[in-house]
Amino acid sequence: MIHIDMLCEAQRVLGGFAFPENIRGYKIEMSKVLRINMSDLGHKWETLPKKYETLAGRAFTSAVLHNEVDPTCHPLREKNKFVISPGLLAGTMAPSSGRLSVGGKSPLTGGIKEANAGGLTATRLGYLDLRGVIIEGAPPVETKDWYSIYIGKDKCEVKKTNDYAGIGLYELIGKIWKDYPGKPGIIGCGIVGQRLHKGAGVFGNNVENTDPGRYAGRGGLGAVLGSKRIVAIISDASGGSRPEAKDKDRFEKGRKAFKDALDNHALTGRLNNEKGEPYGALKNYGTNVLQNILNEAGALPARGFRTGRFEDAAKISGEAVHDLIDKTRKKFGDKAEGKYGHACHPGCVIACSNVVPYEKTGKAQVSPLEYETAWALGTNLGIGVLHDVAEMNRICNDLGLDTIEAGNAIAMFMESGLIDFGDGPAAIELLKKGYHPESAKGALVCSGALTAGETLGVSRIPVVKGQALPAYDPRPIRGIGVTYATTTMGADHTAGYTIAAEIVGIKGKVTDPRSIDKAELSRTFQATTAYIDSTGYCLFIAFCVLDDDSGFNGMLDTVNGFLGKDIDIGEYGMAILKNERAFNKGAGFTAKDDRLPEFFYTEPLPPHNVVFDVSDEEIDAVFKDM
Amino acid sequence: MIHIDMLCEAQRVLGGFAFPENIRGYKIEMSKVLRINMSDLGHKWETLPKKYETLAGRAFTSAVLHNEVDPTCHPLREKNKFVISPGLLAGTMAPSSGRLSVGGKSPLTGGIKEANAGGLTATRLGYLDLRGVIIEGAPPVETKDWYSIYIGKDKCEVKKTNDYAGIGLYELIGKIWKDYPGKPGIIGCGIVGQRLHKGAGVFGNNVENTDPGRYAGRGGLGAVLGSKRIVAIISDASGGSRPEAKDKDRFEKGRKAFKDALDNHALTGRLNNEKGEPYGALKNYGTNVLQNILNEAGALPARGFRTGRFEDAAKISGEAVHDLIDKTRKKFGDKAEGKYGHACHPGCVIACSNVVPYEKTGKAQVSPLEYETAWALGTNLGIGVLHDVAEMNRICNDLGLDTIEAGNAIAMFMESGLIDFGDGPAAIELLKKGYHPESAKGALVCSGALTAGETLGVSRIPVVKGQALPAYDPRPIRGIGVTYATTTMGADHTAGYTIAAEIVGIKGKVTDPRSIDKAELSRTFQATTAYIDSTGYCLFIAFCVLDDDSGFNGMLDTVNGFLGKDIDIGEYGMAILKNERAFNKGAGFTAKDDRLPEFFYTEPLPPHNVVFDVSDEEIDAVFKDM
Repeated sequence: MIHIDMLCEAQRVLGGFAFPENIRGYKIEMSKVLRINMSDLGHKWETLPKKYETLAGRAFTSAVLHNEVDPTCHPLREKNKFVISPGLLAGTMAPSSGRLSVGGKSPLTGGIKEANAGGLTATRLGYLDLRGVIIEGAPPVETKDWYSIYIGKDKCEVKKTNDYAGIGLYELIGKIWKDYPGKPGIIGCGIVGQRLHKGAGVFGNNVENTDPGRYAGRGGLGAVLGSKRIVAIISDASGGSRPEAKDKDRFEKGRKAFKDALDNHALTGRLNNEKGEPYGALKNYGTNVLQNILNEAGALPARGFRTGRFEDAAKISGEAVHDLIDKTRKKFGDKAEGKYGHACHPGCVIACSNVVPYEKTGKAQVSPLEYETAWALGTNLGIGVLHDVAEMNRICNDLGLDTIEAGNAIAMFMESGLIDFGDGPAAIELLKKGYHPESAKGALVCSGALTAGETLGVSRIPVVKGQALPAYDPRPIRGIGVTYATTTMGADHTAGYTIAAEIVGIKGKVTDPRSIDKAELSRTFQATTAYIDSTGYCLFIAFCVLDDDSGFNGMLDTVNGFLGKDIDIGEYGMAILKNERAFNKGAGFTAKDDRLPEFFYTEPLPPHNVVFDVSDEEIDAVFKDM
Repeated sequence: MIHIDMLCEAQRVLGGFAFPENIRGYKIEMSKVLRINMSDLGHKWETLPKKYETLAGRAFTSAVLHNEVDPTCHPLREKNKFVISPGLLAGTMAPSSGRLSVGGKSPLTGGIKEANAGGLTATRLGYLDLRGVIIEGAPPVETKDWYSIYIGKDKCEVKKTNDYAGIGLYELIGKIWKDYPGKPGIIGCGIVGQRLHKGAGVFGNNVENTDPGRYAGRGGLGAVLGSKRIVAIISDASGGSRPEAKDKDRFEKGRKAFKDALDNHALTGRLNNEKGEPYGALKNYGTNVLQNILNEAGALPARGFRTGRFEDAAKISGEAVHDLIDKTRKKFGDKAEGKYGHACHPGCVIACSNVVPYEKTGKAQVSPLEYETAWALGTNLGIGVLHDVAEMNRICNDLGLDTIEAGNAIAMFMESGLIDFGDGPAAIELLKKGYHPESAKGALVCSGALTAGETLGVSRIPVVKGQALPAYDPRPIRGIGVTYATTTMGADHTAGYTIAAEIVGIKGKVTDPRSIDKAELSRTFQATTAYIDSTGYCLFIAFCVLDDDSGFNGMLDTVNGFLGKDIDIGEYGMAILKNERAFNKGAGFTAKDDRLPEFFYTEPLPPHNVVFDVSDEEIDAVFKDM
């Protein structure tokens, strides 16, 4: 039996999910909401409605979508809305709290979508005291113009900026930083989103360079932005100020305790311990530390989910990236751009990001290379050449393309025999076709695994609700399979990261996977995740707060101290999920959509040779009556 | 108020839809069912189960699918079944009764599918006393071999025939007729089905030539056949005998009365009347007689459903085809291959088919050119050159591709700007890419409008349940819109052809379209259609039986005389629809799937400038509680 007692409040509230009165009935400083109408290019400032007072991040985006958007609407036409919201603590001194939520009806899944990322925008909006930006309507279909939106202190401009469209995102960010020398936060869509392809992510800019590497990548929300003819949203915090906590003492006490806990945890901690040994796994190796761990576990889906081990996993692992960075640092000294322990947003103390250098020059090739990406574009394609994987990552970032969806789409070309598994140069060539508007292959690679697979006559397509699976095979890891199946988001590891318990061994590793109630495990993770996605905190704080009581309590103190009163994690998280489930139900989703693809039930995965064997009843128990 | 009183039994049985005892409780000669398992290439002969005694055609295929197939299964893997069944009267002397139903879970819609066609197979199977053939399982995924199935009198062979695969269907039919000189019935899939593309139709052979022009085209069932690695099913009636009616006198009396009625009706009647004037519209002009009628009505969707009139409609109309045929006959005499008044299956007296000749040589270009095809590949693309349209039809037939799906897919390329509307040569080039397995554009054209449109970033995609709309705009013709929305089949005019009442004016034309209960109209048509699709009769008999009491009663006498007892049209039809709705519900369909695309509700169609304004409530009233 697994114990995640502290977070189990989620379960006890299965009866009533409305945001409870006790978190509604008080007054905080009224933040603002900016509403932009792309049908007439107008905008207005609104006071945050009382019922949204405690809602930020995912809680905000999902509430707006649930309350304002017809779930049956076409996701790429005027009735859909594109909503962004910084997490509750974005801009404060709380550590690792600068995540931005992006929401809309997903053109990829047809359901509700929230994707979040680091970058600069959340903290900028926090400084502007903006709880959210709601972009509605769309220019007439015949419009050929492209727009960007500038948001500053009490200022919003919808500008025609056709020169921002049709170019790579590295170039775009450079251009915008030239136009706006204050290095504002930027999010937007690349060529892929501008062409309304379903694999389009929403990029965000990095803290220090023009890499468009901060992706709210999933669900094709970049295409929603494209359908509104918006290339970039520029957030400038000049004149703004750091948000203040309601209960400053509690917030500050919590912040310190929480930061200490993060700093001292084996995963989220310092770069080196007191003895100078490499210590914090994420700082040293990034999320890609998981490559070898999953491979060892036999749950690393290789070559289109055919085996659970990849012989070249080590070559594209976080350790390999770490070694490459060290090597180029030695060789190129100050000129070396490779880096680990890199923060994805201001104030992140986990700093799991990296800059991958070219071996020959030491210059940056891409930033960051995450585990999911190294898996999707490497392991999943049988490609074990780090340089090739990084190059594909760079191209995706430049195009504005979700790497997980792109990798799975390329895998469909390999399944169909048009390209061989393992052929890195061919995969790179294919991906580059995404630059060419006339290329149907390019369009397919940018349209996600389902569309690519179906078009190419593939019947083994790893998607749930149309969204491609990430880097954990659900057959040996049943809990993550239940999350893939049941989350409102389509297959998504971040929606309920049971890997923490099933593989990483946070709070005591699951020893007998058969003994767990997977529904309970997944539901608990999903509800707490929805909460975390609303606070502005990075999901990776979970490793620490699950393991360390003082960290957990510190984290709670920051949130409740900021609001000036207590909110209940479980109730809050379940209320978000309830909104999202209601939206999806309204869009026509049923229990039949909460299923993994057939081949996971019929094809055993080596080396453990197991199929996914969680029953439909167990799966449906996750959100019974919801 | 419209009166189709005789067929209105459908409505009175809305309460109970099980096949009633009164059509179960008697004994007829027990027909056989052939069950072929492609997993082990074995087969067995089964006696028709008692509960299937009165079920044939669509009633049979839909009952088998409902009873035997998991509606959530992957349509292109081993759990799906491919079911064929000749209509009840196939092989008898009843006029126009040789239609074949083909069924399976559709890879295009994800729901149940029945498509039917003429050709030779139904009568052959009738002679063999085979009520149905059920093909289940599939060879292992790694199989590279292709099979054909030979069905003769008490004989079934599953043969490895790799030389049948990968070639055009004209060539294939020629090859099979060389291998089997008795000119057997053939159905199968072409290159498109073999590659598992969702636009793949099931072809059937013509009576007199090697044209693969008899298509059970819709829903991608050709890909289901391809997934079972079957290229052709060959039916040889040698040694078989004409099926006998239980009540021969009644059958014979009915047959004569019905034939007389068909012969004397303005639509289905003789080629010329007593005065030598062209008389039977369908014999003279084929189904494409509708081109000018719909254009006149302002309901002919031109250039991707942008207007209801097409300036070049007359150039590709049935009248134009008729004139071309006359011209080449005059010029080439006996060598002229062009023909109208051509029967699509033995014993059809309506004979609405045609052979379109090349103007320069008089040789056959394609057979037949139907209205839906002339619309999909002509009007819909803004192409008014008959030769170009016929050429595209020929290519589709050769590839094994549904013309409606292909035309709508090409329209998506035009919507996206990759090709111009009206550019026939470019459209032909695009379609030809379907021959090339490496061409992604070819794969898209063969994958249907939804996949092509979504991949190309189009948000105006005319599909319901993933299947492309045919040749009647639902905005001015609301009843057909309700049929498109609610039929279990995805957008399909044949599922409930309200056009007969709304446009053609059978049984009194609808004068005030607003005054009709569209739900009642569509439901009635859908139920009676399901009945007709089970008898083996062509749907076009409806023009006559709706108009002429003696025709209606004659038709009833043939069916009931054959069975030796009365069955109730409404009960029978609704029982079929009930099975189909249950399957689709099991597959995850909800009322949200019974909707037209958003743009029909928001973009008015010239010249009448109306949007589709039937409310969701009216739509859902069609199959309330079903």
